[in-house]
Amino acid sequence: MSDENPLQPPWLNAPPVDPYPYEESHDLRTGPKLHPALDGLLPYVGVWRGRGRGGYPTIEDFDYGQEIRISHDGRPFLCYESRAWLLDEQSRPIRPAGREMGWWRPVLAGDRATGEWEALMTTPTGVMELHLGKRTGTQLEFATDAVVRTPTAKEVTAGHRLFGIVEGALLYAQEMAAVGHGLTPHLSARLIRVGG
Amino acid sequence: MSDENPLQPPWLNAPPVDPYPYEESHDLRTGPKLHPALDGLLPYVGVWRGRGRGGYPTIEDFDYGQEIRISHDGRPFLCYESRAWLLDEQSRPIRPAGREMGWWRPVLAGDRATGEWEALMTTPTGVMELHLGKRTGTQLEFATDAVVRTPTAKEVTAGHRLFGIVEGALLYAQEMAAVGHGLTPHLSARLIRVGG
Repeated sequence: MSDENPLQPPWLNAPPVDPYPYEESHDLRTGPKLHPALDGLLPYVGVWRGRGRGGYPTIEDFDYGQEIRISHDGRPFLCYESRAWLLDEQSRPIRPAGREMGWWRPVLAGDRATGEWEALMTTPTGVMELHLGKRTGTQLEFATDAVVRTPTAKEVTAGHRLFGIVEGALLYAQEMAAVGHGLTPHLSARLIRVGG
Repeated sequence: MSDENPLQPPWLNAPPVDPYPYEESHDLRTGPKLHPALDGLLPYVGVWRGRGRGGYPTIEDFDYGQEIRISHDGRPFLCYESRAWLLDEQSRPIRPAGREMGWWRPVLAGDRATGEWEALMTTPTGVMELHLGKRTGTQLEFATDAVVRTPTAKEVTAGHRLFGIVEGALLYAQEMAAVGHGLTPHLSARLIRVGG
């Protein structure tokens, strides 16, 4: 160990630090090489934009726009970021809506991908969903293994998601169990690739 | 309701969608107005860069660089994004290290902030931490109320974090309970403002 004063925090007089020296990318033509364990979801890496329809037994149906960014940094996980906004009947924006961030982790046997996935997804509404999933071709199915909510969050208890790549577009259907209802269709959308 | 065919998904032939029309910002001089419920943490909004020291009973001490971005979009929550990298004894980068994303939510009484906070933090290592916290002046203390891990994640069971703004710098100390140890000092760092 160096001759530091153990009582003094090591960073107290440390030199400034250069910017983050590594790359994260949603574009497979630039940045780090995609980790081989992610090859199964290679078609998902990118930025996607499109529209969807939402609803639930307790609310009116609604239309929304959405952007999803799925990126990587060379390590065996994907970064998922989503933001949506409400649309009126003329497709004009009404206000910002759902946001979500998380990580998608391939389950490995040794260093070989098994086709199983883990997803950790969290929203600013106070909900964290831990999903276990399976890839079949380009279809990815997730179901919640655990849902954790803050004391002030809405009562969400389970979720199920089906993602697919159809004719180059990203489609998904999302079910939710909440406020006393079992798993019920909640969101579905089709997004086209706009980046990567 | 419009004359849509109920069996056909609404987005099937929908017009393309414009880019996300709203702003998220880590700079209080631009973008949307900060929601009043976030005023207590106004000094935190920005991009921070600095260094820290990590360690745990089961591993060697290590030095790291870190960037933290705390941003908002006008609604009553903050977006937290962090990425770190290991440094050698000459402060040269070794490899990318911890990443973390999440949301910080003020607990409101009516529309008044109570000084209590909820934090949802997730890492690509398969861990989701739900923290409850309290702000005192510019000091923010979080402790885990729940920890959820994927089947392949390391055994993390609790966390405690203390953030502060000292002479304009962001300092924090982070304890972790993991792999059979109780809450034990794990990370501490000092970051200076580089954005916002």
